[in-house]
Amino acid sequence: MSKKVLVVGGVAGGATTVARLRRLDENLEIILFERGEYISFANCGLPYYIGGTIEERDALLVQTPESMEKRFNIDVRIKNEVIKILKDEKKIEVKDLSTGKIYEESYDYLVLSPGSTPLRPPIPGIDSPNIFSLWNIPDTDAIYGFIKENCPKKAVVVGGGFIGLEMAENLHELGIEVSIVEMLNQVMAPLDFEMAEIIHEHIKSKGGNLYLGDGVQTFDYKDGKTTITLQSGKTIETDLVILSIGIRPNGELAKDAGLEVNQRGGIVVDKNLRTSDKNIFAIGDAIEVIDFVNKTKTMVPLAGPANKQGRIVANNIVGRKEEYKGTQGTSVAKVFDMTVASTGNNEKTLNKLGKEYGKDYLISFIHAKSHAGYYPEALPITIKLIFDLEGKILGAQSVGYDGVDKRIDVIATAIRFGGTIYDLKELELAYAPPYSSAKDPVNMAGYVAENILNKDVDTIFWNELDDLDRENSIILDVTDPEEREMGYVEGSINIPLNDLRDRLDELDKDKLIVPYCGIGIRGYIASRILVQNGFKAKNFAGGFMTYGNLFC
Amino acid sequence: MSKKVLVVGGVAGGATTVARLRRLDENLEIILFERGEYISFANCGLPYYIGGTIEERDALLVQTPESMEKRFNIDVRIKNEVIKILKDEKKIEVKDLSTGKIYEESYDYLVLSPGSTPLRPPIPGIDSPNIFSLWNIPDTDAIYGFIKENCPKKAVVVGGGFIGLEMAENLHELGIEVSIVEMLNQVMAPLDFEMAEIIHEHIKSKGGNLYLGDGVQTFDYKDGKTTITLQSGKTIETDLVILSIGIRPNGELAKDAGLEVNQRGGIVVDKNLRTSDKNIFAIGDAIEVIDFVNKTKTMVPLAGPANKQGRIVANNIVGRKEEYKGTQGTSVAKVFDMTVASTGNNEKTLNKLGKEYGKDYLISFIHAKSHAGYYPEALPITIKLIFDLEGKILGAQSVGYDGVDKRIDVIATAIRFGGTIYDLKELELAYAPPYSSAKDPVNMAGYVAENILNKDVDTIFWNELDDLDRENSIILDVTDPEEREMGYVEGSINIPLNDLRDRLDELDKDKLIVPYCGIGIRGYIASRILVQNGFKAKNFAGGFMTYGNLFC
Ligand SMILES: Cc1cc2nc3c(=O)[nH]c(=O)nc-3n(C[C@H](O)[C@H](O)[C@H](O)COP(=O)(O)OP(=O)(O)OC[C@H]3O[C@@H](n4cnc5c(N)ncnc54)[C@H](O)[C@@H]3O)c2cc1C
Ligand SMILES: Cc1cc2nc3c(=O)[nH]c(=O)nc-3n(C[C@H](O)[C@H](O)[C@H](O)COP(=O)(O)OP(=O)(O)OC[C@H]3O[C@@H](n4cnc5c(N)ncnc54)[C@H](O)[C@@H]3O)c2cc1C
Ligand SMILES: CC(C)(COP(=O)(O)OP(=O)(O)OC[C@H]1O[C@@H](n2cnc3c(N)ncnc32)[C@H](O)[C@@H]1OP(=O)(O)O)[C@@H](O)C(=O)NCCC(=O)NCCS
Ligand SMILES: CC(C)(COP(=O)(O)OP(=O)(O)OC[C@H]1O[C@@H](n2cnc3c(N)ncnc32)[C@H](O)[C@@H]1OP(=O)(O)O)[C@@H](O)C(=O)NCCC(=O)NCCS
Repeated sequence: MSKKVLVVGGVAGGATTVARLRRLDENLEIILFERGEYISFANCGLPYYIGGTIEERDALLVQTPESMEKRFNIDVRIKNEVIKILKDEKKIEVKDLSTGKIYEESYDYLVLSPGSTPLRPPIPGIDSPNIFSLWNIPDTDAIYGFIKENCPKKAVVVGGGFIGLEMAENLHELGIEVSIVEMLNQVMAPLDFEMAEIIHEHIKSKGGNLYLGDGVQTFDYKDGKTTITLQSGKTIETDLVILSIGIRPNGELAKDAGLEVNQRGGIVVDKNLRTSDKNIFAIGDAIEVIDFVNKTKTMVPLAGPANKQGRIVANNIVGRKEEYKGTQGTSVAKVFDMTVASTGNNEKTLNKLGKEYGKDYLISFIHAKSHAGYYPEALPITIKLIFDLEGKILGAQSVGYDGVDKRIDVIATAIRFGGTIYDLKELELAYAPPYSSAKDPVNMAGYVAENILNKDVDTIFWNELDDLDRENSIILDVTDPEEREMGYVEGSINIPLNDLRDRLDELDKDKLIVPYCGIGIRGYIASRILVQNGFKAKNFAGGFMTYGNLFC
Repeated sequence: MSKKVLVVGGVAGGATTVARLRRLDENLEIILFERGEYISFANCGLPYYIGGTIEERDALLVQTPESMEKRFNIDVRIKNEVIKILKDEKKIEVKDLSTGKIYEESYDYLVLSPGSTPLRPPIPGIDSPNIFSLWNIPDTDAIYGFIKENCPKKAVVVGGGFIGLEMAENLHELGIEVSIVEMLNQVMAPLDFEMAEIIHEHIKSKGGNLYLGDGVQTFDYKDGKTTITLQSGKTIETDLVILSIGIRPNGELAKDAGLEVNQRGGIVVDKNLRTSDKNIFAIGDAIEVIDFVNKTKTMVPLAGPANKQGRIVANNIVGRKEEYKGTQGTSVAKVFDMTVASTGNNEKTLNKLGKEYGKDYLISFIHAKSHAGYYPEALPITIKLIFDLEGKILGAQSVGYDGVDKRIDVIATAIRFGGTIYDLKELELAYAPPYSSAKDPVNMAGYVAENILNKDVDTIFWNELDDLDRENSIILDVTDPEEREMGYVEGSINIPLNDLRDRLDELDKDKLIVPYCGIGIRGYIASRILVQNGFKAKNFAGGFMTYGNLFC
């Protein structure tokens, strides 16, 4: 007799699971339960529909229940919520939300892909009619409708994660003045602070207001307007509030059934994505995964992993054993005209795990160009590459306008293979002037890393400047006088790189020399000249571009 | 005493070598010889300066002799041709082209980066005043000047390689009607035929005239016009001819000195890029390299490898042993609005090596979208992935409008790690709607490859259609009636995928069923339904998109 598979949740993970299951086995009985009205919709496209970039609402519905039934012969039950798992009986209880009727359904295998739910902490006033979360189609319709009807002039996005920033951009597109409130001192948690600062500047340049290191204390709604009082005491008046302050996994169903869940309520699974019950699998936002880089347990709510896990579970169910090897957290977001992407671990994560800069990991930090500088529209791209003392890549972050996703995808691929910075320098990447440079920024990040590992250059980072003993050091601007006129580090002296060899006697050998240039290359060359001439030198990583971003 | 290093050739390989050498060692005596007037120029940018995309001629000169001397303390000798290597005496003979004087220079190490020279076969009339090759700044000035002065209306590019096509595009940008003459039956040799066909269509859609499988017999110049007679007898009248029919390595200097060269005149080097003389290294276009994938010897004239080799040689000279592991031939070119890129081996190469489809390698061929279909401007991207029967990736080609370079860079990275198609499906790549899909096209190419390796699907390619026994097969169009109205394969019958399960009895189990759809996905799903219902089926790879391109 053919097996019966029940799947809970009809979007990224769930829909992929049933499609793959059907391709693998025409005879399975497959039922897909979705408590909402829609399955298989493009969660990730929702902000862009609100902003008008995606014009047709239908475009968001990748598959409908009808097409799923016809194409994949799936019994799709929307507005049916799975309310209980009776694991010992291999049954579930389902509530038909249209009729209120509760019924049972038995299974051979059960797959949980229930996703997650946006947090709505009990802040006073949070239930005001102009405060929204964005997670699904009804949320989208509500926000869309609200904007159409009320033409808000001002909006506040609470939470500077990627959905928050995408919403900020899309509201801005609609001509709405946007403020972003974020509890941390930076937006975009996958980035380290100095990388996020580039984004902060960009948001401000677009007219966005940033309230960093500040949280919402209260919302006060009156006559269509909400006054937000922040923990700092500041107030913001606004017509619309978007909450995107985090999510929690939908793990209750699993927990109530006695399946193992972690502290955050995430469903615990093994390598084959099987829960603590051998007939129940779980995937997507709701599960705990292994961090591919540091091998600790984590939760990574992203569509790519959810889709991949769905396919793996389908394979496992039909008896093709396949393992899920962990999640790197590779992600990307468009933030106004910029792109932010990252993969693997950032410094904050490493520090939380007790890893120390210099002892456990090192950093290659470069500003490069998206493609050959002599070809039009070469735009800046910043890469921060983190690697251990053997050169193994631990993570990378990139911010820029063009080609950011490409460089992160390449590094993500290298990480997947356990690659080192030596591998990065050897990568043979596609080069023609409109696309890259003969030394791609990824190669360059590898070179810089190698120079650091080889101790050919010593580097000083922005966050070490404060501790620099100014008495016993010289900050050496090696740019040309025209460049210096545009700005320089307070207290620095200027010897253009091309004159340095002739003017070494102007420098004191007992002091630490900190050369810097525009982005870091000439500072590095200066370092090499200095060190070989008996000076102590530390190149300032990122040069004036980074300094300016952080301190000017 | 400090060592003396001489470098022959002052552009991609040579300039990189001296820059790295100086960074490594302040004390080396370094002399750079360049027979031309310019060093360190952007060869790859030349076509774009002619076309006006790069506006400033100066932008092409990345470093000048002066800046190279000041920054890197290099003795740069332009218009100095190295005419002889006296390897036993560790000396070279140099001709100062300004004065005609010949002098000697001794070395501890000699680095050869003499590049290559465009072919000018002895075709009658080839020396006419409107026939040019493009290789360096003087060539560029000549073409640029000719166009300014003569305002040609028609141009013929002889040779459909990447420089030829870049020139075609740039001449077209100037409003010149362009014809391309190519001896092979396709442009862009790194692509296989069916991939090149996409480019052929694109060139034609831009108004370019293509003469494929035809060579130049004679050029007849008269009154500013050249009549080209092709081997087929066809004639083309034109105002301007650009020759880009290939290159030969500048290996004579090495050969004359008794260094080992290969049949094509390419300089033979070992893993450390050392020639048959231990004090002489060679790099760049002039050397023979190992094909990274198939391990045979080959020559790959590209800027990325030349640059990387330069850095490796510098390391080796200062005693840091480093190996060059071979060249994959990763390359990319912009062809009008399209992008063409590839890495590793194509089918033609494999076939030349005696490898057979099905026996030695298999193919995953997909049409996908540059990013999520529901986000605006998602454009088609085609990927052809070649892998062996263990799944190891041998090569990939891609053609499209956006994101082509990214996908090839990712696969190039996987190849570098000896990756398999199983690795591709697991890659965790950056996804947000403007950049990719939750299942990136690279993942998708991996899935399709896995299905082929697992024999979950049998695939039929365009070049197997001719041999298909039409009597005993049914070509099954599984698209919807509206799609079928736009075109279909002659002799096919139509059962939309969503109706297939209900209409299986219309099909003959004794015949081979060849389902096809728009791009291949529904054809695959149809195959799965058919096979599990006892039919023999082969999905037509690439669906009607490929069929239309090749046969309509
Ligand atoms: C606005 C937005 C933008 C995003 N952008 C990106 C992006 O750019 N890139 C990216 O990688 N990720 C993005 N994501 C995240 C991505 O969409 C999720 O990680 C992914 O959808 C998770 O898949 P899942 O199957 O676990 O959950 P979901 O896709 O959320 O599906 C879970 C479904 O289960 C249903 N369900 C829950 N419990 C039950 C029950 N008891 N009975 C029946 N049904 C139930 C829910 O109604 C829901 O429809 C975005 C998410 C949002 C909301
Ligand atoms: C128009 C054009 C577009 C290109 N586009 C791309 C692209 O998009 N991507 C890519 O990867 N590659 C591209 N290339 C190829 C790339 O430029 C070469 O592969 C690369 O420059 C090779 O480096 P090299 O150091 O070996 O030779 P070159 O850079 O050519 O330098 C060799 C130099 O040596 C000098 N020389 C030779 N013999 C002597 C001697 N006896 N004495 C003194 N000097 C000597 C020559 O004058 C020459 O300047 C392009 C090339 C051209 C011409
Ligand atoms: C729509 C949805 C049900 C599709 O699932 P799917 O059928 O597994 O995925 P796709 O349509 O991308 O098709 C992938 C399949 O086609 C195959 N395929 C892709 N291109 C192919 C080609 N050119 N030729 C042959 N087969 C091809 C793949 O191998 C894969 O099949 P497999 O898993 O059996 O190997 C599911 O992805 C979904 O619900 N998406 C929307 C929700 C979502 O993901 N949200 C978050 C992101 S916004
Ligand atoms: C211009 C030219 C001489 C430069 O050579 P180069 O100095 O080796 O290359 P770059 O200017 O790209 O600098 C690379 C160096 O800067 C370092 N670097 C790059 N970014 C850095 C940063 N942000 N901080 C510190 N160091 C950095 C790299 O590590 C590398 O040094 P290393 O080799 O010692 O490790 C040479 O590339 C050239 O002649 N190019 C034009 C010709 C050509 O390539 N043509 C074909 C393509 S069009």
